[in-house]
Amino acid sequence: MNRLFDLKAYLKEKRTLVEEALEQYLPKREGTYQLIVDAMRYSLFAGGKRLRPILCLTATEVVGGDLRVSLPVACAIELIHTYSLIHDDLPAMDDDDLRRGKPTSHKVFGEALAILAGDALLTEAFYLLTHPKFTHSIPDASLIRVIHLIAEASGFRGMVGGQVIDLKATGKKINAKELETMDRHKTGALIVASVKSGAILGGGTKEQIESLGKYGYHIGLAFQIVDDVLDIEGTTIELGKEAKADQKMKKSTYPSILGLERAKELASLHIRHAIDSLKGFGDEAEPLRAIAYYIKDRRR
Amino acid sequence: MNRLFDLKAYLKEKRTLVEEALEQYLPKREGTYQLIVDAMRYSLFAGGKRLRPILCLTATEVVGGDLRVSLPVACAIELIHTYSLIHDDLPAMDDDDLRRGKPTSHKVFGEALAILAGDALLTEAFYLLTHPKFTHSIPDASLIRVIHLIAEASGFRGMVGGQVIDLKATGKKINAKELETMDRHKTGALIVASVKSGAILGGGTKEQIESLGKYGYHIGLAFQIVDDVLDIEGTTIELGKEAKADQKMKKSTYPSILGLERAKELASLHIRHAIDSLKGFGDEAEPLRAIAYYIKDRRR
Repeated sequence: MNRLFDLKAYLKEKRTLVEEALEQYLPKREGTYQLIVDAMRYSLFAGGKRLRPILCLTATEVVGGDLRVSLPVACAIELIHTYSLIHDDLPAMDDDDLRRGKPTSHKVFGEALAILAGDALLTEAFYLLTHPKFTHSIPDASLIRVIHLIAEASGFRGMVGGQVIDLKATGKKINAKELETMDRHKTGALIVASVKSGAILGGGTKEQIESLGKYGYHIGLAFQIVDDVLDIEGTTIELGKEAKADQKMKKSTYPSILGLERAKELASLHIRHAIDSLKGFGDEAEPLRAIAYYIKDRRR
Repeated sequence: MNRLFDLKAYLKEKRTLVEEALEQYLPKREGTYQLIVDAMRYSLFAGGKRLRPILCLTATEVVGGDLRVSLPVACAIELIHTYSLIHDDLPAMDDDDLRRGKPTSHKVFGEALAILAGDALLTEAFYLLTHPKFTHSIPDASLIRVIHLIAEASGFRGMVGGQVIDLKATGKKINAKELETMDRHKTGALIVASVKSGAILGGGTKEQIESLGKYGYHIGLAFQIVDDVLDIEGTTIELGKEAKADQKMKKSTYPSILGLERAKELASLHIRHAIDSLKGFGDEAEPLRAIAYYIKDRRR
């Protein structure tokens, strides 16, 4: 790894870009839409890492594209990620009171409005993706392809499917393979879609898009394994959400199936595979390498 | 109205077309996705009137287009309508046990899966809209325009926004103007989007699209007024959902604000305006005229 690359500064710069764009795409409202937009923005601006949009923007740059083209797509993915957090936290789902150190949406706005804020964020992603003002510089065919990819990764074939597997598995013993299937859907699919969308919009070749997709697959799994490890090793204050929540919910996790040490080894293995998938790229992929290491070593 | 036009046969034929297409787009699954697809299909094939997709297909034909082109778009709108019913029925929202004569999704699958089935149906709409196998015959620019229109009508600027107005108004006295704003969002927006999408995909002129949009606006409001009237006059068996639900929830409705007779008159007025908006069309618009009368006279 290039020790000269300053990941912290890189992430901060990209995060600022994403947040300014989100602010432009979903500004505060007065009148009829004030309450729903307030609820959408409450979760959208709750201090997320913006990992998915940053991966999308970075993938665009890695294949030589202009990130201003993929910025609305990156932000649409963040809208979808945010909706999924709101719905996951609902009393009928994980019943979480805290998220990113703040009370969850239903704790602040009530359950009905939290459901609607999630619905509105998901829908807004597709509104933004097709907004002539924001996505006019994307060729129509690429835009349609990217929307399809994102919808596939978000729906029952991806993220929602992962939540259903999670629901069915809660309270049951599952094996490592079943757990991988769950995580590949729940976390992996949207991360893969973020990287691939960025690569498509940047004009990447078929091989580049495939390699970056593999990278996304491995960091996605590593991300989830580290999440499970942090749930055990982290404190509620560090995490900004309740620690030991998996144990409370009797969820099967990598540490509960493999033990803490082997889970950490598996995360490292996925990071190594992620780095390997970048071997066709040169220095321009340095941010993706640094993000892979960061995912393994993060504390929240 | 042309007395020779057989609306019942027309609706049946179109409904069959829509249902066969939905079956093709969202077939049963085995394995990982079986449960979520079962839950999605349970509500999707629960005997809806298919009003929105039929309006979309009819609008395409009225402007001289081929309904096979707009069929996937019509079905995507039905997926969105179905998701909205599942989420509206949730305990945190209207808390309804019956819908179309069958137990609601959360009664059958539990609350968590009902939320996810709704999420998956909404996402699936955009997956279908961008599926190369199904929408390849739509010009890219028209497809993007139609997706934008549908997302706008479904999100906080439309249907979800209407639900939020509904939430805020429940238990309060609101006036007829506020009620119209609510209904225009809750029911009207997606009906307008159905008709306009169909007209766009059929190659309608700007004026035709606008006239058909006006038609949709008026039948949308008439539809909601008649819904409110039926909630009072209908029985649970006729409606397939609990009668007097609005009174139970202390919701302001047209009959509660205007009285039953003036509410019925207002519905008739909107139907008259709807018919007027079709004056630029000839016999080819006969199905839309018949649908307008049907909306006023329906019993469920």
